This record gives sequence, structure tokens and C-alpha cells, in this order.
Amino acid sequence: MKKSEFAFIGDIAAMFSALPHHGFEPIGDDCTVLPMGDEALVMTTDMLVEDIHFLRGASSAEEVGEKSLMVNISDVAAMGAKPIATLLSIALPESAQGEWAESFMRGYYEASKREGVALVGGDTTASRDKITINVVAIGRAPMANIKRRSDAKVGDAICVTGKLGISSKGLVDIMFGDLNTSAAKAHRRAQARTAEGAWLGTRSEVHAMMDISDGIASDIKHIMELSGVGATIELSSVPTDYDIRYATTGGEDYELLLTVDSERYEEVAEALLKATGTTLTKIGEITAGNNIEWLDNGKPTDIEMRGFTHF
Amino acid sequence: MKKSEFAFIGDIAAMFSALPHHGFEPIGDDCTVLPMGDEALVMTTDMLVEDIHFLRGASSAEEVGEKSLMVNISDVAAMGAKPIATLLSIALPESAQGEWAESFMRGYYEASKREGVALVGGDTTASRDKITINVVAIGRAPMANIKRRSDAKVGDAICVTGKLGISSKGLVDIMFGDLNTSAAKAHRRAQARTAEGAWLGTRSEVHAMMDISDGIASDIKHIMELSGVGATIELSSVPTDYDIRYATTGGEDYELLLTVDSERYEEVAEALLKATGTTLTKIGEITAGNNIEWLDNGKPTDIEMRGFTHF
Repeated sequence: MKKSEFAFIGDIAAMFSALPHHGFEPIGDDCTVLPMGDEALVMTTDMLVEDIHFLRGASSAEEVGEKSLMVNISDVAAMGAKPIATLLSIALPESAQGEWAESFMRGYYEASKREGVALVGGDTTASRDKITINVVAIGRAPMANIKRRSDAKVGDAICVTGKLGISSKGLVDIMFGDLNTSAAKAHRRAQARTAEGAWLGTRSEVHAMMDISDGIASDIKHIMELSGVGATIELSSVPTDYDIRYATTGGEDYELLLTVDSERYEEVAEALLKATGTTLTKIGEITAGNNIEWLDNGKPTDIEMRGFTHF
Repeated sequence: MKKSEFAFIGDIAAMFSALPHHGFEPIGDDCTVLPMGDEALVMTTDMLVEDIHFLRGASSAEEVGEKSLMVNISDVAAMGAKPIATLLSIALPESAQGEWAESFMRGYYEASKREGVALVGGDTTASRDKITINVVAIGRAPMANIKRRSDAKVGDAICVTGKLGISSKGLVDIMFGDLNTSAAKAHRRAQARTAEGAWLGTRSEVHAMMDISDGIASDIKHIMELSGVGATIELSSVPTDYDIRYATTGGEDYELLLTVDSERYEEVAEALLKATGTTLTKIGEITAGNNIEWLDNGKPTDIEMRGFTHF
């Protein structure tokens, strides 16, 4: 179904491109950007649908609440901005009013508190039988800190924060009924790289940045397309405790994918570790052209890599 | 069900009130307000659920697209601000992908074009069998133009734009299968008072303002509560072509409800008519205390007035 999602979004973006933009930058990044003098506001939205993004039987209401916030906060972090507020809309069938709704709000609140973000608006409504959740996250940053997908430069080191693959390994565990593995728990409880994103925003050596929601194999293509560059990725460098396919084509890791001036990568990685406790690992290089090349210990491999979409 | 919606929202607002607000004003108005120097951004969100807010058989996809935008734009107008952009999330079951989705986007686009608002972000996803739509509207205004529900003053004239009741009359027509009456069409195609809202924002004689989404009988109570005032409303003054109950307790008119310095009401009404072609009608007065009194040709009436909610 992946083509239809991107095609539909592409059609919509083309249709609206002629309308007045009132200062907003064009669609295409993790967040939309509204410059306001020396500062910028960034905004993003994600919709979570019962039985598509979560199962009431497999995730607790608190976990759904936490994850609804985190997947949006992650997009703000990916811009180099600090999340400041959210708006929450929720459609609740009768079976989820009362206890489920209250537990959901507890999970959403605890995550908001931990991240220091306000809830500034929302909507609640009934629905026939499924829960739908929509979150908008708003971030703020000095204009100079904003990182875009379009700023990768040939020769840049391609880097990722943390380790990849745990979330999709957890999804597979859940599908097999193993709800209590550490990977399954990690899948249900996304953790956004908030401190890391805001910190990386302050570093001019960081060029392009985005969050990893569909897997690096799919996500790197957005950077390649918008920056007009290619990429080489060394599979043996991808940091993971799991099968390499989870780490490259599995979604929902919510780590950050970024390109860094190759001469400054080591210094940035060391400083990030010191500031946040999070590792930064070089997994490849930005190249001229528009192809992606996968290497396995230096040798080209024709393994087919695909990310996944929700539509 | 109305108590549960407001109680749940009240609980949520209380829960989050201790978190850092990052400059956002407290929840409770048509939009949240973020002051940015001399300017303010305002934001609002509404979720529309199939079979709760619209029926696929009774509204065309274009009409649903138009209305999804308009109900949000209306909240921006109610703050005295100019709508500049929206974010749109939409969950589509397989039966609504393709033709329905494209027609929906045409309706949303045509309304966006007419109102001059950009589409700056969004999300599309699959759903099991019902359509869910979430829109966020963003507006901008000089900080001094922002109108709040909390600024009504004792002695103010209570005024409404245009005429009331057509939308709920139209809903009743639709329920009886009369889909093509002018009221039924008006119900399916909400028209926000965009120009009027932005114009009224520039007038310091206008104190409190909100849009009429649940009927004046319900909506005036929000102004009373937040301003700490009472109200007297004269039924014979309420501008309507329909039964007075549609005009007072019917929802979704999306006209503006405002309080105006009583000595300046006539001047403001005349200038608004000249600037926008829209009438402003005085229907009552803000009083001391916290009660609402309904008069019928000057005589107290104990008719029970209720607005409606969606939950």
C-alpha cells in the first residue's frame, strides 16, 4: 500500500502549492516551519488509529497515551527544536469512555510532564466503535538551529543515535504473542530523542536531520531526494542487537538519522555522549548522484531494503 | 451525554495546569493563544467522525471537506484573528480511498483557496471502516486584536452576526430525508465569518467574542462563566427565519456571538455592515451576577434552553 500513501500526499502538496503560504516553509520535512523573526515555530501532526497503529488487547491505555505523544515529539526533536506544547483530539467509542480514556490521559500526562510540554488545546468526541487519536506537537528554536532534510552535503558522515531494530523486533514478538519481552515493551513505549535533537540543533556541523519512523532504508531516501544526493551505507556499522533487517527496514525506532561534516563527526559524537549519554554512530557517507549503495564489510550487496508505511 | 464531555475536558485541563505553559495562555477559549512579541498566533483543533458528525450518504465528500475546514476557521475568526494555515489528518477505510478521498480534498482545497489559507502539514492513514478527520487551524493577529470569552463587561450589548437556526433546521430536514432544502444545504456547508472576525478584532469596543457552535443558549454560558457575569436575552430580538428553538438551542450556525460596549453598538454594527455586508444584531445585555434570564417581548419566560454536545 506504500505507493498510494506517498502519491496521495504528493498530489495534495502539489494542489496546495499555489495558495498563499503566509511565511510557512514548503511541506516535506518532519515538521512545518514558521519563521517568526530570529525564532521559528515548528509543528507536526500524527494520527493513531485503533487496529492499525495499536491493538487494545496488546497495548495498555497508558502505553498508547505515552506513544501518541512521543511519536510527535520525535518529529520536533528531528528539526533541532525543543517541544513546548501539544494539541490532542480523541474519538472514543462507548467501550473506551471512562476507564480506558482516563488511563490513556494518565500515560499522555506522565510523558508530557517528563518532556515538559504543555497541553494547549484539543477535542473529544464520540465514535461508533474504534478509538482514533490525533496529536499536534509544537516546538520552538532559534531559526539558525532548524535542521532540514534538504541540507545533506556530499562527503557528510551519515549517523544515527542509539541502536536500531528493537521496536520492529518487539512488534514481531507481539505478533507471536510474546507481549512481555523487552523489545515488545520498547515497541509499545516509544522514547523520543528530545534532549539529543535540541542539542544537535545547536551544532552547525550537523547538516540534515530526521527521525527514523519507517526504517533507515526508507528514511534515508527522503534526505537523498530533498538534498539531491546519494548514499553509501555499511551494514556492519549499523548499531543493533537484533537481525540487520529489523535495524534497516523496521520502523518506529524514533532514533535520529543525521548527516554530519565528516571531519567533525568524532568530535560531535563525543560531545553528544557527554551532554546526553547517547551514542552517535557513523553508518555511511553521503555521495554524489542519487543512488543508495549497501555495503557488507566493504563489499557491495544487492539485498533489497524496504521501509514500511501505514497506508 | 453532555456532562461527560465537559467533565472530561475539565479534568484534563486541571491535570495539565501545573505543567510549564511556555507562554501559551490557559485553555478555555475558541483557540489557544501564543503571544510572540506584538503578535499572537492562535490555534484550534476539531475532529470529525463518520456517523457522528456526518453521514457518507447525506453529505457529499466535497461538503465534508469544506465543512472540516470551516468549523476550524470559525474558531480562529472568533478570536479576532486571520486564519493563515491548517494541518489535516485523515484516516480512510478502503471504501473511501480513491474517489471519496479525492473529492474530499477538492472540497477542502476550494474552501482553503477561498479563505486564503495554506495547508502546511498533515497525516494520512488507513482505518478499519470509518472515516476520521482532524483539522488544526492556525491564525495570526496583532496581540491587541485578540478577543477572549473572559472580557465581557456588565452593561455590554450581547450581539450576533447574521441569522441563527438555519443549520439545525437543516439537520432536521436531513433527518426527515429532505436533503435538498436550502437549510439542509447550509447545514452541510458551514460558512465561517472570517472577514467579520478579523474586522471585529480591530475594534476595541468589542469585548468578548466566540463562535456559535452549540447554540447561543449553551454558548453564552461560556462567556458568563469566564467573565463572571450574567445575561438577559430577548427572544424576539434573535434574528432567525425559523422556529426560535432552532435559533437558540440548535448548533453549528458558526455565526459570531460577541459583547460590545453598549454605547457604541450601533456604530460598530453600521461599520461592520459597510465593511463586510453582514448584519450585527443586539439580542440582550450582560448583567451583574451569574444567571441567564430569557425574555419574550420583555416578559420573563421559563422556557428551558439547552445547547447540544457531541459526546
